[in-house]
Amino acid sequence: MSGGKGFDQETIQAMMQNPELMAQLQRRMEGLTGKGSGYVESLPKPIQNRVKALKNINREHQALQRQFNQELLALERKFLTLNEPLYTRRSKIVTGDYEPTEEECNYVDSDEESDEEDEDKVVDLDSEGDKEAQDALDEIDVKGIPAFWLTAMQCNPDIDNMIEEQDRECLESLVDVTYEYLAEGEFGFKLVFKFEPNEYFTNTELIKTYHLSDDGTSTELMFERAEGTVIDWKSAEKNLCVTTKSKKQRHKASGQIRMKTSTEPRESFFNFFSPPEMPSEEDIDADQEAAEEISERLEADYELGETIKDEIIPRAVFWFTGEALEDYSDDDDEDDYEDDDDGDFDDEDDEENDGDYEPKKDTPEECKQQ
Amino acid sequence: MSGGKGFDQETIQAMMQNPELMAQLQRRMEGLTGKGSGYVESLPKPIQNRVKALKNINREHQALQRQFNQELLALERKFLTLNEPLYTRRSKIVTGDYEPTEEECNYVDSDEESDEEDEDKVVDLDSEGDKEAQDALDEIDVKGIPAFWLTAMQCNPDIDNMIEEQDRECLESLVDVTYEYLAEGEFGFKLVFKFEPNEYFTNTELIKTYHLSDDGTSTELMFERAEGTVIDWKSAEKNLCVTTKSKKQRHKASGQIRMKTSTEPRESFFNFFSPPEMPSEEDIDADQEAAEEISERLEADYELGETIKDEIIPRAVFWFTGEALEDYSDDDDEDDYEDDDDGDFDDEDDEENDGDYEPKKDTPEECKQQ
Repeated sequence: MSGGKGFDQETIQAMMQNPELMAQLQRRMEGLTGKGSGYVESLPKPIQNRVKALKNINREHQALQRQFNQELLALERKFLTLNEPLYTRRSKIVTGDYEPTEEECNYVDSDEESDEEDEDKVVDLDSEGDKEAQDALDEIDVKGIPAFWLTAMQCNPDIDNMIEEQDRECLESLVDVTYEYLAEGEFGFKLVFKFEPNEYFTNTELIKTYHLSDDGTSTELMFERAEGTVIDWKSAEKNLCVTTKSKKQRHKASGQIRMKTSTEPRESFFNFFSPPEMPSEEDIDADQEAAEEISERLEADYELGETIKDEIIPRAVFWFTGEALEDYSDDDDEDDYEDDDDGDFDDEDDEENDGDYEPKKDTPEECKQQ
Repeated sequence: MSGGKGFDQETIQAMMQNPELMAQLQRRMEGLTGKGSGYVESLPKPIQNRVKALKNINREHQALQRQFNQELLALERKFLTLNEPLYTRRSKIVTGDYEPTEEECNYVDSDEESDEEDEDKVVDLDSEGDKEAQDALDEIDVKGIPAFWLTAMQCNPDIDNMIEEQDRECLESLVDVTYEYLAEGEFGFKLVFKFEPNEYFTNTELIKTYHLSDDGTSTELMFERAEGTVIDWKSAEKNLCVTTKSKKQRHKASGQIRMKTSTEPRESFFNFFSPPEMPSEEDIDADQEAAEEISERLEADYELGETIKDEIIPRAVFWFTGEALEDYSDDDDEDDYEDDDDGDFDDEDDEENDGDYEPKKDTPEECKQQ
């Protein structure tokens, strides 16, 4: 830099001949590589100024990024609208409100190979009992495709992980899952779970809403908060998110016996509709560890929401058949999940590899066997 | 189903009173939940037909998905074109071809808090030696922002993981990183690394190209293949991707001594430009394990390419300063990487949490210290 203050060229020359000082300068310059913030402040002022100029340029980039996010959302809205009639037709077949014609059922798998595979996998029906059972099944009048959404969701390891034994019967009455974008100008989406009348709750729809924001600092939208429908359980005993314990209590004086019931929260798919609140600055100050745990739960929760929106809903039929699993893996850190039943997953051995390659995916062999 | 073949209602009634058969049917129906492909074939034919109808509906969805992918790519192209002038201005400041005006360097961080944080982090310059060093540094005439891209890349743990000790000097001559989309109608992108003349190779640009395809089976584009520029190393010794060993050999008969040099491949950032070929069906048949290993390497390689395109290039200045690290984590499975130097990462303890929440991100505390 010309016109610097403080040192004349002679002094600088002298300094540059001081090996210790030069080593220090060298370290400082090398400090440029791979350092966090703060180190920048110890760089020569001219460089700091250039960095600031770059940050100003980045502001313009952020403005463009915001515009991009708006246009992307408009594009996504447009295609959701185009897809909705398809989702409605699917829903009517699933519930049995519409019986597809023979022509509509005429499906030839374009991937011949996978046809062969399917044949290999057909359950052996040679034994007389099985054959009878199959024929009998064909006779039974079933409406639509029973347990379609439960089956589809259970085939995805991440979603399956949320579904507890006690949830299944209730989830058989889940007849449609759709998503919607939020009001114009808002980022985020709603997942809408439609239920047939069931013995557990009175709601016909359970909705999970994710609010995102575009704070411009990152290329991605930021998760802001999640909220869910309050479930109207038909009774305390039907509440799948708690266990109820009854205990006899004898009154000390009167000897009268009464029943005391206490409830404890338990793991359930339906906890998906009561996500925790995002920890505030105060929460973080008060208990950083607890706040981080909640942040992690929200992160995992948001990823599940994205999986349902981007993977399950668009391709539900292939989750139902298990075919979607072939090109799916969770991108998540293992840490996002409690290892409550490790034995259910068997990803390691005998992986299928059909030569197709899907970035960010690997290939667990089979759906979880219940 | 009306009009079924084989069994009359009476037989079905009889069957339904056979507890063993009914248990078998029940198991079969429950088999609907959580099963892989193959099980579908053992379901009642009417249900199988409805599933086929759903697959036909999904074909229409796939066609829309293809159209969406085209329009998304057009949107991305449009915004890259809008961003390019900003990237060019950045590049000129980094190389020193343009000196920003005082006004252009006037940057006020909109996030006051992070200003405070930065102040906390300023390296203590109180000692006399440091102060002198700082003043001396301010005097030294530096062009642009030295090692800008090396520093930015090293601040990202995934990219840093690729950079070996021997690569650093060469990467100081990396003066720009940009990306381009492929020709109209093709999916994928190119990463362009621009180098100043350096003592290692004669190339002025090294390019990594990722070809993707839209096979319509998934909502995501599929990785097809990657290719890189062949590096013209100035000499075998300058080749950073190999180690050269020289050995004296004495001729048995004549006693003459000659030098024999052998080269061995070694880990280097520059291996990024010679990605392996996607294993063919034959490769998989021949050695499934080796083919899977290559697939995994390609998957990790593609993720790195995406990180450079989506994270590093758009926000390079915040990678340079380390600020970008605050809302970044790799989405990758740990398994994607060889654990060659575990000690470098220290994600677990003392994580920062500034109350901002970014889905799919966690917050390693600090850039890797070299």
